[in-house]
Amino acid sequence: MWCQSCKEGYDEEDAGTCKECYEEASETEEELKREIDDLRSRLLFLRLPSPTLDAASAPNCDLLLHAIPSTGAGGERDAGRTPDTPAVPAHRVILASRSPVFRAMLENEMEESRSGVIKIYDVSYDILRAFVHYMYTAEALLDEQMASDLLVLAEKYEVKHLKAYCEKFIASKVNDDNAITHYAFAHRHSAKQLLEASLSVLMANMSTLSDREEYKELVEKDPRLVVEIYEAYLNRQVNTAAGKDTNCSNRK
Amino acid sequence: MWCQSCKEGYDEEDAGTCKECYEEASETEEELKREIDDLRSRLLFLRLPSPTLDAASAPNCDLLLHAIPSTGAGGERDAGRTPDTPAVPAHRVILASRSPVFRAMLENEMEESRSGVIKIYDVSYDILRAFVHYMYTAEALLDEQMASDLLVLAEKYEVKHLKAYCEKFIASKVNDDNAITHYAFAHRHSAKQLLEASLSVLMANMSTLSDREEYKELVEKDPRLVVEIYEAYLNRQVNTAAGKDTNCSNRK
Repeated sequence: MWCQSCKEGYDEEDAGTCKECYEEASETEEELKREIDDLRSRLLFLRLPSPTLDAASAPNCDLLLHAIPSTGAGGERDAGRTPDTPAVPAHRVILASRSPVFRAMLENEMEESRSGVIKIYDVSYDILRAFVHYMYTAEALLDEQMASDLLVLAEKYEVKHLKAYCEKFIASKVNDDNAITHYAFAHRHSAKQLLEASLSVLMANMSTLSDREEYKELVEKDPRLVVEIYEAYLNRQVNTAAGKDTNCSNRK
Repeated sequence: MWCQSCKEGYDEEDAGTCKECYEEASETEEELKREIDDLRSRLLFLRLPSPTLDAASAPNCDLLLHAIPSTGAGGERDAGRTPDTPAVPAHRVILASRSPVFRAMLENEMEESRSGVIKIYDVSYDILRAFVHYMYTAEALLDEQMASDLLVLAEKYEVKHLKAYCEKFIASKVNDDNAITHYAFAHRHSAKQLLEASLSVLMANMSTLSDREEYKELVEKDPRLVVEIYEAYLNRQVNTAAGKDTNCSNRK
């Protein structure tokens, strides 16, 4: 017999679908692709020129955002940067529509609304630019550091879409070496998907877990998180055992 | 044999794909669906609250749009409406990003830019509201009249995405009774897709074309358009004949 799709011969026992279902599936695929094209063109329409790239749109901006990098403990990364980096221009309507925190700030008679100047603490200029850029375009160029920094900012300003976007990116980068760090980070920022991804990796390496330096640090700093790893591990063992029992009884 | 998709039995000659291709196709479908979900969530993020619906966003608006309905010939539809309908609030950044015409108007030192007031001529208040709503949401509730009116406005302000959206909608509504009207409309507004759709319908009814009232009107008003119908018809006949010849010679 001949496959309509790859045009190669196949044995009877390798047959997949009847002609009707095959044709239906092709139609579905075409429809889905048309929908994707349509959504993409709507996205392009709704995407706004970001004032971080497009200087021409800056004159109409009615806000200035200032990045104030942290200088104390944990802020070493930005210590070398002078705090007087240029301001990032933006529009009230965009920031208010993307973030309930900005909305509250700008729609009530707060100092920021009156002055049109907002200070964003504990971020570098580059992170702030990426943050504002995302508000206009729903796009960001991520590496792990950028994704973590943006996630923190997105959480602070309740930009759910950006937080989920960064979380998904970081979750895809979890490995044996960074799982403990990401697990603690996910805990700190209520990032459920990342928590699960890092827990999964941790559990696959339980035998060597306690040898790791980051493990020892976590026990020191936040032992409750370590307890949760063990609890999740035990829980999974119990569930797996129960699952096996059910499978066995199903097979009779 | 059993179909993996509909689970029903089928004959050998109705077999569609081998198992491998079937599984690949299912994966492709899953991937496309994931992409659609992703695009939809980005759309939701980029969509802005329209000031035509959301009074709360109006205070931040820096523009007022006034609909000035036409009152002369062809404007009877709006004659009953007083020209002092409420102004439609909007944001410069949104209008300038969606329309090169508004951009030029607002970024240069034109009267509209200074006053923040733009008069939109020859439209009703409802059309203007729908127009502004689309600028924020990429969504419009269309019927044929609304689609035609919005297409005209979209063309005037060079909002390509909206024009294409309306054109696609009208093209889907072309039938024997309205094909001549839509054909003339498409010509007037350089709507290529609609032109083709209405020409197709016209050509399927050439024998009765000249009996129609709209045909007679068009001959009177713009005979060149009627000539183009006949030219296209003849062209198609020639091509069809050539196609038949090719088919015959292919068959040998």
